[in-house]
Amino acid sequence: MSNFQVVAEQFVQFYYKTFDESRGQLAALYRDKSMLTFENQATLGAAGIVEKLTNLPFQKVAHQVASLDAQPSNEQGGILVLVTGVLLVDEEQRAMSYTQAFQLVPEGGSFYVYNDVFRLVYPASG
Amino acid sequence: MSNFQVVAEQFVQFYYKTFDESRGQLAALYRDKSMLTFENQATLGAAGIVEKLTNLPFQKVAHQVASLDAQPSNEQGGILVLVTGVLLVDEEQRAMSYTQAFQLVPEGGSFYVYNDVFRLVYPASG
Repeated sequence: MSNFQVVAEQFVQFYYKTFDESRGQLAALYRDKSMLTFENQATLGAAGIVEKLTNLPFQKVAHQVASLDAQPSNEQGGILVLVTGVLLVDEEQRAMSYTQAFQLVPEGGSFYVYNDVFRLVYPASG
Repeated sequence: MSNFQVVAEQFVQFYYKTFDESRGQLAALYRDKSMLTFENQATLGAAGIVEKLTNLPFQKVAHQVASLDAQPSNEQGGILVLVTGVLLVDEEQRAMSYTQAFQLVPEGGSFYVYNDVFRLVYPASG
């Protein structure tokens, strides 16, 4: 398995575990130039991103990853990650599908999140 | 509206129109270093990508975009695009949900597709 695939899998596992247990701690994954677009709402910078994530209107959340794809995003070690999965919030019984794209950028032996785009995916009605 | 948003919207409109009408012509959007991961199958390079896309097991396909998000992916003009939508193939009546992430890279006044990751999204069963 290529290294970018291993990094992507470790990142995704850590990201959703942290999100589901204590999402304020996601701050460590973002920098001032990081971007989040969450359901069409754009936020720039770690502080604003974590404020956005911690203020989402639910207390409990559980993500379950269904697919994870990774590709090198440039020749400097960046990694594009596309996740699909389902999530459950609070006492809601019905899971929602979502997709999330990340770009991870290397920094001092680790990676931070440069791009983060999240969308719920509604069932096709056709 | 920011320029990257306009580029992303024009790209997505052109991409799916071309895909649905004559997908062999998507070759012009890829380069030798472009990557496609289509339902977990990875392909490198324009020739292989177009072969993969033209050999997909359907004759007719229609994409309908439900959401489009874009962010700058680096300081050299790259653009990350995340699409969700539905598609119909051949005579199938039931639409399928999908998500697709692209990274567009500038080249000579235009852009090519460096990263392309496609996944069907199945309804959450919870």
